[in-house]
Amino acid sequence: MSIKIKAITSPPSREELSNRLERLRTKMIEQDLDYYVSFDPVNIYYLTNFAFYVHERPFILVIPIEGLPRMLIPLLEKGHFEERVRCDVDTMTYYEFPAREGENWFDHYQELIEKDAKVGVESMMPVGIVNKTPGYQLVTDIIEEVRIIKTDYEIGRTVHACKVANKGHRVLLKKCRPKVLEFALYKEVTDAMTSKIVQDIPNANFKVIDTMGIVWPPSISYDPHSVPHIFSEMEEGGPHVSIIQAQVDGYGVEVERTFFLGNIPEKAKKPFEVMLNARSLAYDLLKPGVIMSEIDKKVRKFINAQGYGDFILHRTGHGLGITGHEAPFIAEGYDRELEPNMLISIEPGIYIPNLGGFRHSDTILITEDGYMKLTKAPEELEDLIIPIQ
Amino acid sequence: MSIKIKAITSPPSREELSNRLERLRTKMIEQDLDYYVSFDPVNIYYLTNFAFYVHERPFILVIPIEGLPRMLIPLLEKGHFEERVRCDVDTMTYYEFPAREGENWFDHYQELIEKDAKVGVESMMPVGIVNKTPGYQLVTDIIEEVRIIKTDYEIGRTVHACKVANKGHRVLLKKCRPKVLEFALYKEVTDAMTSKIVQDIPNANFKVIDTMGIVWPPSISYDPHSVPHIFSEMEEGGPHVSIIQAQVDGYGVEVERTFFLGNIPEKAKKPFEVMLNARSLAYDLLKPGVIMSEIDKKVRKFINAQGYGDFILHRTGHGLGITGHEAPFIAEGYDRELEPNMLISIEPGIYIPNLGGFRHSDTILITEDGYMKLTKAPEELEDLIIPIQ
Repeated sequence: MSIKIKAITSPPSREELSNRLERLRTKMIEQDLDYYVSFDPVNIYYLTNFAFYVHERPFILVIPIEGLPRMLIPLLEKGHFEERVRCDVDTMTYYEFPAREGENWFDHYQELIEKDAKVGVESMMPVGIVNKTPGYQLVTDIIEEVRIIKTDYEIGRTVHACKVANKGHRVLLKKCRPKVLEFALYKEVTDAMTSKIVQDIPNANFKVIDTMGIVWPPSISYDPHSVPHIFSEMEEGGPHVSIIQAQVDGYGVEVERTFFLGNIPEKAKKPFEVMLNARSLAYDLLKPGVIMSEIDKKVRKFINAQGYGDFILHRTGHGLGITGHEAPFIAEGYDRELEPNMLISIEPGIYIPNLGGFRHSDTILITEDGYMKLTKAPEELEDLIIPIQ
Repeated sequence: MSIKIKAITSPPSREELSNRLERLRTKMIEQDLDYYVSFDPVNIYYLTNFAFYVHERPFILVIPIEGLPRMLIPLLEKGHFEERVRCDVDTMTYYEFPAREGENWFDHYQELIEKDAKVGVESMMPVGIVNKTPGYQLVTDIIEEVRIIKTDYEIGRTVHACKVANKGHRVLLKKCRPKVLEFALYKEVTDAMTSKIVQDIPNANFKVIDTMGIVWPPSISYDPHSVPHIFSEMEEGGPHVSIIQAQVDGYGVEVERTFFLGNIPEKAKKPFEVMLNARSLAYDLLKPGVIMSEIDKKVRKFINAQGYGDFILHRTGHGLGITGHEAPFIAEGYDRELEPNMLISIEPGIYIPNLGGFRHSDTILITEDGYMKLTKAPEELEDLIIPIQ
C-alpha cells in the first residue's frame, strides 16, 4: 500500500484506445458476434474519446469484428467529432433529425450492417434504435465488461481525479460551519475543484467534467438520496454527511465523510463506531478472488448483530470509472470475484430517522494482493469533530 | 404580440399534473392501451414533478388506464421521491441493484402488469427494460405527444425561464471583449443566471437546473457543435456566436446571437443580412395551421437563392420544453401543423469555413393568431457591433 501511482493528465494514446477495442473484440469472438453496436455515450467515449449528450439526433458506433469501426453522426457534429476522436474510425454523417425521405439516420444505419449478421447490442440501447438495427440481435453488455478492469492509463487518470476530489473535500471541511448555506458551500467547493481541473488539464473536455460538493446536514442526513435544499443551513453538531463527486475530464471518483461541527451528540457515538467498524471489516476482505456479494453479506451481518440492521438502505459499494456509479457492485446478488485493477467504493451506511446518517466513502483500487485507497480525508472521530470557534 | 404573459415560479399544482395525466390517458384510449410505461426521466418528471438521473438502479412509472399510477423506485430514493412528487401515486420500492434472488427490481415490476395486457412503451426505453416488461408491447411516444402542446402553467414557467436567459445574455454581451477567456465568460454568465434562479425560486430542484453561457469566437463559429476550449480567447471582429441555454427548475429555453467586437469584417456583412432575412421569412410564416416542414423548405430555398445553400448545417428550429431540444421540429421530414401553445426555436444558420457562423435563436410561443417572442436580445447589426473601448 505504500507504492505511489503517478497521476496522469494527458489524453489517451491511440494504443490505449486500440487496446480497449481489442479487448472488446475478444469478447465479441467469445459470443460469436459479427458486429457490436454502441449507443451509450459512456461506452462510445470509452472507445473513441468523443463525448456527447444524447438528444434526438442519434450517434451510433458500429464495430465490425474486423476492420475500422464506423461512427454514424449528425452532419452538424462532424467537426466536433473529428477534433476529439483519438482512434481510427470511418465517419459517416446523416443530414438532420428528422430529414427528407431517404436521408434519415436509419437509412444510413441500414447500410452499415448486413441483414444476416449476428449483432450484439447494449441492454441500455433504446428499443427504437434496436428496432432499426439490421441482423439478429443479442443483448449483451460486453463494453461494460471490458470497462470493469482498468488499464494502467485509466488508473493514472483516476489518481489525478482523486487529487481533485481530495482538494474539494479539504475546502468543504474548511468552509462548513453552522449557518453556512448549502448553496454557498456548493459554490466554493465546486469552484475549487473546477479550477484545479482546468489548470491541470487546459484542454479538458467540458462535456465530461462534472463536480459536486454537497453536505447533508443532520436534519436530513438520515435520507441519503434526498436532495438538500439550496438555502438549507449547516447546523451545530451532526452527523453531517459530505459527498464529493468529480468527473475529471472523463474519470469519475468520490469521497464522502460523516462529520460533526463543534460536538458530537451522545446518541451518535455508537452508530458512528459501528459504521467505522463495518467499513474496516469490508476493507479487511478486499483482495482478488473474494466474492463481492460475500463482502456485502458479511458487512450486513455485522451491522445487524450490532442492532442497526433496520437502518441499512444500500449495498456496501459500487464500481467507479467514466461514471460515478457502474459495475462491479459490492452487493448481495453480485456473485463475482474481485480482480486486480477494479475501482470500487467502500461505503457501508447506517441511516437513523431523527438522528442522521453515518457513511464514509472512498475510491479504492484493487491491487494484486489487496487494495489501495486513492482518496484521502480524515477518517477517525477525533479528526471529524470540527472546531467551530 | 403586445399582451404580456405573467411569469410563474411556483411548483405545479395537483390539478396541473392530473390534467397532464388525463391528456395522456386520452391518447392511451386512442391506442387501446391497458398500460403505458415510462422510463425516460423527462417524461416521469413531466407527470410527477420528481426528477432523477438515470443510473443502474431503474425508476419505472407504470400508468394503468384507470386508477393510480404506480412508481417503482429503489428503497434509497423513497424519501427523496415523496418529498418532490406532486401527484397521487402508489409508490413501490425494491431493495437494491443488484439484490438477492426474488428481490430485484424486475421481480417487483412483473407484478405490476398482467401478462395479457396491452402495454405502450417509449421508443427511448432501454431494450433491457422492454425485455422484462410483461404483456404485449407497442412502441409509442404518447407522453412526448402530450408535451408538445404546453399548458398555461408551463407557458408561465417558460416566460420566467426566458427572463433568466435574457439576463444571462445581457451579462454575456457586457463581459465579452477581445482577450477575455471562454472560461471566465462562462463563469460570469452562468453565475448570474444561477443566482437569479435561486433567488426567484428558493425551493428550486438542483436536478433540473442547468445553465450554459458560451461564445463561439470567430475562429470556430463556423462549426456550431464544436465545443469551445476552456482557454480560448474572444477576438476583435467576428462573427462571434453566443449560446445561452437555461433549464430553469425544469423549464428549458435558449437565446443566441451573432455579434461583432469593435467592427464587422466586410465579408461578414452579406451572410449576416441573409441570415436575418431568412429568419424574418421564417417568422412571417409562424401561425397555427402552417406545416413545419414547409417553413424549413422555404427558408432553405431562400438561403440557396442567395448563394449560401452549401453552408446550411441544420434545420430551422426545434421544440423547447423540459429539455432544450425536443419535438416538434421545424425540419423537412416533419410534416405536421403548428398549433397554439407550442414552444419552438427559430434559428436558421449559415456556417462558412474561414469566415464564421451566422445564427440568431429565440424561444417562441405559437399563439392563436401568430407568435410571441419570449426571449429578448439585440437583433439588428447596428446593435450587435459591440464597442470595445
